[in-house]
Amino acid sequence: MYKRLRALRQASNSLKANIGLHTNVATQFARVNPTVSQISKYSTAKSVPYTADTYASKVSRDPKYKQIENKDLEYFSSVIPEQSIIFNNENDLLFYNEDWMRKYKGQSKLVLKPKTTEQVSQILKYCNDNNLAVVPQGGNTGLVGGSIPIFDEIIISLSSMNSIRSFDPVSGILKCDAGVILENADQYLRDEGYIFPLDLGAKGSCQIGGNVACNAGGLRLLRYGSLHGSVLGLEVVLPDGQIYNSMHSLRKDNTGYDLKQLFIGSEGTLGIITGVSILCPSRPQASNVAFLAVKDYETVQKVFVESRKELSEILSAFEFMDLKSQQLTAKHLGLEHPIESGEYPFYILIETSGSNKDHDDEKLETFLGNAMENGLVEDGIIAQDESQIQSLWSWRESIPEASTMNGGVYKYDVSIPLKDLYGLVEDVNTKLAEANIVDFEDGSKPVVSAIGYGHIGDGNLHLNVCVREYSPEIEKVLEPFVYEWISSKNGSISAEHGLGFQKKNYIGYSKNDQEIQMMKQIKNHYDPNGIMNPYKYI
Amino acid sequence: MYKRLRALRQASNSLKANIGLHTNVATQFARVNPTVSQISKYSTAKSVPYTADTYASKVSRDPKYKQIENKDLEYFSSVIPEQSIIFNNENDLLFYNEDWMRKYKGQSKLVLKPKTTEQVSQILKYCNDNNLAVVPQGGNTGLVGGSIPIFDEIIISLSSMNSIRSFDPVSGILKCDAGVILENADQYLRDEGYIFPLDLGAKGSCQIGGNVACNAGGLRLLRYGSLHGSVLGLEVVLPDGQIYNSMHSLRKDNTGYDLKQLFIGSEGTLGIITGVSILCPSRPQASNVAFLAVKDYETVQKVFVESRKELSEILSAFEFMDLKSQQLTAKHLGLEHPIESGEYPFYILIETSGSNKDHDDEKLETFLGNAMENGLVEDGIIAQDESQIQSLWSWRESIPEASTMNGGVYKYDVSIPLKDLYGLVEDVNTKLAEANIVDFEDGSKPVVSAIGYGHIGDGNLHLNVCVREYSPEIEKVLEPFVYEWISSKNGSISAEHGLGFQKKNYIGYSKNDQEIQMMKQIKNHYDPNGIMNPYKYI
Repeated sequence: MYKRLRALRQASNSLKANIGLHTNVATQFARVNPTVSQISKYSTAKSVPYTADTYASKVSRDPKYKQIENKDLEYFSSVIPEQSIIFNNENDLLFYNEDWMRKYKGQSKLVLKPKTTEQVSQILKYCNDNNLAVVPQGGNTGLVGGSIPIFDEIIISLSSMNSIRSFDPVSGILKCDAGVILENADQYLRDEGYIFPLDLGAKGSCQIGGNVACNAGGLRLLRYGSLHGSVLGLEVVLPDGQIYNSMHSLRKDNTGYDLKQLFIGSEGTLGIITGVSILCPSRPQASNVAFLAVKDYETVQKVFVESRKELSEILSAFEFMDLKSQQLTAKHLGLEHPIESGEYPFYILIETSGSNKDHDDEKLETFLGNAMENGLVEDGIIAQDESQIQSLWSWRESIPEASTMNGGVYKYDVSIPLKDLYGLVEDVNTKLAEANIVDFEDGSKPVVSAIGYGHIGDGNLHLNVCVREYSPEIEKVLEPFVYEWISSKNGSISAEHGLGFQKKNYIGYSKNDQEIQMMKQIKNHYDPNGIMNPYKYI
Repeated sequence: MYKRLRALRQASNSLKANIGLHTNVATQFARVNPTVSQISKYSTAKSVPYTADTYASKVSRDPKYKQIENKDLEYFSSVIPEQSIIFNNENDLLFYNEDWMRKYKGQSKLVLKPKTTEQVSQILKYCNDNNLAVVPQGGNTGLVGGSIPIFDEIIISLSSMNSIRSFDPVSGILKCDAGVILENADQYLRDEGYIFPLDLGAKGSCQIGGNVACNAGGLRLLRYGSLHGSVLGLEVVLPDGQIYNSMHSLRKDNTGYDLKQLFIGSEGTLGIITGVSILCPSRPQASNVAFLAVKDYETVQKVFVESRKELSEILSAFEFMDLKSQQLTAKHLGLEHPIESGEYPFYILIETSGSNKDHDDEKLETFLGNAMENGLVEDGIIAQDESQIQSLWSWRESIPEASTMNGGVYKYDVSIPLKDLYGLVEDVNTKLAEANIVDFEDGSKPVVSAIGYGHIGDGNLHLNVCVREYSPEIEKVLEPFVYEWISSKNGSISAEHGLGFQKKNYIGYSKNDQEIQMMKQIKNHYDPNGIMNPYKYI
């Protein structure tokens, strides 16, 4: 059973009664671990319209790109075997054409699944020589429509390139193919006493190449830093087929411009990442997770500042969730919330990771004891074993799926200075209410609610506008309002999800003209024909 | 007094007797904190020859660069005040023309010291329009001749741009001018409860802009990671005078290519960094330093692997030093070594930083107790207070100066897989002995010795070849031997010092043709006239 906080401070009167415990939550965890096929079934919306139709006024197929002909297929068949090619088979193509939010849908007729870097090179060179547009695709778990085609772009899936190339147990450096699934890499590292320096809800489906291409942030960036720091080397196939082999495995290397950095976060617009070399930290020997209820957003911030001071080097995650996000998750999981003493405006998940369980327990309990004594925490629980840790995490990690269960979700993933962060959720809800299109309970309006959660430690808010259907009317209320709001606080319109198709036209809210111009120059430098992931990014 | 390790394990018989203590070392520390003027006086060599003369067979002045004329001076005088210009004054120019190792000497007649980004912009635009070559210069503490001119390039010193622009005590994000001295920034942050995520011996002189331009690594990279991860934004003046204002202060921001990364480690060849935005961690509340003596290099590695396992999240530095490096340092400091029980082949400095002194003490003492019980450590001491911590660090941080005290030093700063790392020092000493040019004691030969020390935690060796004079004969023994040796182990010929002038022609030992070609394209893209820091880098 969970440990209640009152056990820490028996004298404290502020605690609610402890009514029952959810030891059964842990066993449910496997079910909610998101994979693309599982997620889709939660969506009740009608079939997804083509993105090209939905956004017909904003985007049209560029005639400079050639349409696929028989001779192209013949060439591709000479490079990779038949079973690595999907052509004109609507059913098989669907998985690659549609995103998991069921928001974007492309019309590609051709998926290529190369097994080697050399094959990727031959394919890209041919496409470049023949003006065939391509979309590189990893696990297709992106949230901004970056990995699905808009029109008939050829999808190059990395999923058949899925081998661990090498691992050095002294330095902790892993080299692997781009198509290795994140959870598989982490599992491999677990056996070696190491941990992948990135973790996110989609870990069961997303691929490491895609993670790097999107500069994924995730749940433990607070502890392990960004991929710009931990990726040591990359192998990239450039649009003209040249292989940029820079798979270094040195923690320090100051010999020239660090060009691999350009590809980290380039979302498949400069080339296709085929290999990754990454520095992995030792796996922590002790983990703790506490789940807290607090009375307002100001208190969330106070608890964060205190936790960073007191937990310091063992703090590995600090996540916050608002009440509605937890109500939706409870409905989605079909479970009672682990904090049963009532509903609270905000919840916090704190994770610690360290090398000495006794020390970590003492630090966490001292911190929580102080937080309660100071009246910061209304109620809370501490996981007592690994399965409870997983259960508590599921109340955070299941929110993205819970957000879509009524039909769909408009996702905004933003960086905003901490003090203003939750104000965006409040203002969006006000705006939706004014437009009279929101209704949390009875389903008579198109919008369920705007909810907020995310990585306080990184100043990163996930604003999810949960809807019963996608519609231009909703979109008009949200945009550009959300982007203008963020811009007014000098925030970023994409903290970790990237630009993709969704935010292509909004980069100006976060970057100035000079920055955008320099980006366009880089794009043009590496991909002068513009075949890489067109209609997106910048 | 220092705490001896035997206090931890009274039963252990392996410890040497504790003979006297050096409580006076601490008070000497301020003296050895390197600043350029202090360092120079240790060098006893005759006056430094012009680099252009020493390397006359390898480099000649490119006639495409215009020589300075009166009208140029008139223009510069219209942009910055007279007192910010040094012209034709041999004495005043010397500080900027000569490097602190007294190895490189340029012939610039003009130093400009702008105070604002706008002034830097006007100066660069003029130089670009008029084909005037420039060298950006920070604290001039570089080790590869990157910050001194080779011929008559104009020196643009950032030292007058030295203001902290802002600091946010909630997020820990510092924004400052490029010319802020590292130690001053760290002192400022200390008062706010934060720490600069970079520390190096030259902190009293080096500037943050220069640190970023060289992607400095330093003593605590093990803990705080590389600048590619911690720098959040930059302001850079491009060669054509355009100001790339990308001074963001968001921990996560995925809106487009991360172009600032190109300038981190570009050594002034793409533009001049004028402002830096950087994420700073909370200052640890507890620090420990232990200094250990071990019997061979294999044991150094074993102690490292164990320390990473047992000290994990509190390990903030793991430095090793060979015996000769400590003998030279003792002579340089005029002090007895803190480990007095005899001389040992290798020494290790371990630093821990954490939030709870009791926990850290317990972890460190348990680790050291085990290490002694397993026979890994011959002798050792633990600092008992801040001044002892500083004293022990001085035995590591003074090595660079001690290396030069006989006249000069050939410095190689390399990354090599751990198991092979010290082999380079041994092989170089063998090679020097074979050439019959080395002699540690009596001064009859040009070379004192090759010594090795560095950041084991990062696989980073500093190979210093201490000499009584610089000579082509010595250089011929060392190069390309050293570079070939590194290349054969897939190492890097520059872990953290950069390429500069010294390694311009050797990048091929660490990067392949494709990588070098892509770097040259980037250089050409941003600096088509080649005015930025010519004759260097690639």
